[in-house]
Amino acid sequence: MEKKLEEFNDYRERMNTRLLSAENNKILKRIYSVDALSYENGALPSKTKEMLGLATSMVLRCDDCIKYHLIKCHEMGLTEAELMEVIGIANLVGGTIVIPHTRRAIEFWDELHIAETNIKSKE
Amino acid sequence: MEKKLEEFNDYRERMNTRLLSAENNKILKRIYSVDALSYENGALPSKTKEMLGLATSMVLRCDDCIKYHLIKCHEMGLTEAELMEVIGIANLVGGTIVIPHTRRAIEFWDELHIAETNIKSKE
Amino acid sequence: MEKKLEEFNDYRERMNTRLLSAENNKILKRIYSVDALSYENGALPSKTKEMLGLATSMVLRCDDCIKYHLIKCHEMGLTEAELMEVIGIANLVGGTIVIPHTRRAIEFWDELHIAETNIKSKE
Amino acid sequence: MEKKLEEFNDYRERMNTRLLSAENNKILKRIYSVDALSYENGALPSKTKEMLGLATSMVLRCDDCIKYHLIKCHEMGLTEAELMEVIGIANLVGGTIVIPHTRRAIEFWDELHIAETNIKSKE
Amino acid sequence: MEKKLEEFNDYRERMNTRLLSAENNKILKRIYSVDALSYENGALPSKTKEMLGLATSMVLRCDDCIKYHLIKCHEMGLTEAELMEVIGIANLVGGTIVIPHTRRAIEFWDELHIAETNIKSKE
Amino acid sequence: MEKKLEEFNDYRERMNTRLLSAENNKILKRIYSVDALSYENGALPSKTKEMLGLATSMVLRCDDCIKYHLIKCHEMGLTEAELMEVIGIANLVGGTIVIPHTRRAIEFWDELHIAETNIKSKE
Repeated sequence: MEKKLEEFNDYRERMNTRLLSAENNKILKRIYSVDALSYENGALPSKTKEMLGLATSMVLRCDDCIKYHLIKCHEMGLTEAELMEVIGIANLVGGTIVIPHTRRAIEFWDELHIAETNIKSKE
Repeated sequence: MEKKLEEFNDYRERMNTRLLSAENNKILKRIYSVDALSYENGALPSKTKEMLGLATSMVLRCDDCIKYHLIKCHEMGLTEAELMEVIGIANLVGGTIVIPHTRRAIEFWDELHIAETNIKSKE
Repeated sequence: MEKKLEEFNDYRERMNTRLLSAENNKILKRIYSVDALSYENGALPSKTKEMLGLATSMVLRCDDCIKYHLIKCHEMGLTEAELMEVIGIANLVGGTIVIPHTRRAIEFWDELHIAETNIKSKE
Repeated sequence: MEKKLEEFNDYRERMNTRLLSAENNKILKRIYSVDALSYENGALPSKTKEMLGLATSMVLRCDDCIKYHLIKCHEMGLTEAELMEVIGIANLVGGTIVIPHTRRAIEFWDELHIAETNIKSKE
Repeated sequence: MEKKLEEFNDYRERMNTRLLSAENNKILKRIYSVDALSYENGALPSKTKEMLGLATSMVLRCDDCIKYHLIKCHEMGLTEAELMEVIGIANLVGGTIVIPHTRRAIEFWDELHIAETNIKSKE
Repeated sequence: MEKKLEEFNDYRERMNTRLLSAENNKILKRIYSVDALSYENGALPSKTKEMLGLATSMVLRCDDCIKYHLIKCHEMGLTEAELMEVIGIANLVGGTIVIPHTRRAIEFWDELHIAETNIKSKE
């Protein structure tokens, strides 16, 4: 189970490294740097921003973006009750076309918790 | 071959059960219940509604939604000639970006027929 | 009130003429010709096809496409009860983001009926 | 200036009334009722939910939905500094294609404040 | 006729100024600055990049973005024969849902030429 | 590694054959034929058109369409420096939601080069 999470992270990191070492990558580099800035604590706390990242990723239906923001939301202590309200709004605004992505989202969310439990039990 | 269809159904059911047993799932539960209602016989027959579900899923390009409505269309006796006209409109309105989803749709459509033949031959 | 319908038709026609008389318009001309073919009676009746055109236009949220298919659906005798079921599925699949387009759709639908009444009363 | 806000509200209300009094409006009625529920205080406060509604409306690029959630965000005391961070994430995730909608959003945001000042000055 | 072009430019400029003078606009400012960079001459000439900007704006169906890139394409000497091939690909990939935006695009394209003729005749 | 490229081509070809031999495939056949025409040399060279195909596929986020146009761009000698500028514009216009597709695009781009090297080394 943990594999999927690791695989996701490994692939993401490997390909980002590839892209950021490509020749002539000026534009992409800048987009990545704005991306990092956008979710930092500011007038709104990071946790709220990650929920915004999650909800927008859900209505635009990008599984990898959803996974990324689920990892971040989980790190910031989002509860399942809170998650379900973000999911509710995303499915309402974006429609039932979002449901299959919601199924994969909750599966990944459960993997995040299993991974966390495994790490704690090894300590 | 039949595996894919079974896998699709199993995963779908398992994750729906997970989502509908999540705490604080009030909104999602209601969306699921409207969803069930929307395709029932009414002023328009279910078959027409499933074609509407299929065509909208195609232009919004959600493979799992397409598969779901293909199962339903097949259950309601949609012929290949009818399917190809739904597919034609979806590819026309939605553009060639829909073509890869159309390839996966026809593959799944063929799986549905093989599965049906296998079931009948076992009887 | 009728103005809007007339304006819509006039603008549409004028600009289509402009596009189809542009130099080097080979591709667009072909797309227009496939477009005309796609909604003709076939394995599925035109009326069903126009509903597919309407529903896909709604989830893709194009007001002018919605208006065009409303005109066609109206010509083919779609009832309000039938329209509301197409609208229901489009809003369900596409989400509440479709609601503002639905408001403009029903306004145009009413204009179509007023225009029809005016024409009949002049006869 | 205030006109635009009033016009927006009037049109919205008039057409909602029309839709909800249409025959055979069962599905739409239910969607409207889930919609009302989704933004209520729960595990997340209404203000956060309205920001989620705003951000998802921005990436899906629906001006009327953006306006609606701006009204709600304004009622809930969203500051300009907070708004600019929601806008930042929406433009980052959704891309520069969101910029024209952002221009119309800030124009409407300013109208909301002018309307508020006018109301207060009359008291 | 020229009015529309002027209006478009005035509104665009006024609202950009408003946005870039908002408090806490760090993210948006950076996005605007990457935006300016992305269309400069590089491995690909600006003209090709503006065509990419135009085609992506067409399939994402943003009228204001289309207008902006039409202005730029016109400045860079795009011919009508070239424009029609960009339009062809955008309508093919994006589907007939792009047609109404294509009608508005060609109308604006013609306004750009009328404006140019007027300016030249005043010289 | 080469497998993926071969698999992609095989699946694509097999399913296109299936679709084009389906009964009642008139509309789809025509769309395929316009598709072939649209990328031919004309007022714009094929290479520019393939870049337009790639950029529009990226902002609409279709992995298979991206792969197809990467194959074509590679055949037409697109350099990595040029590719990175197309990618830059697609990620800017389409937003960070395009990033996961960009990761898969560069992975496939690298596979294309490995495949090419393997073929050459066998000669």
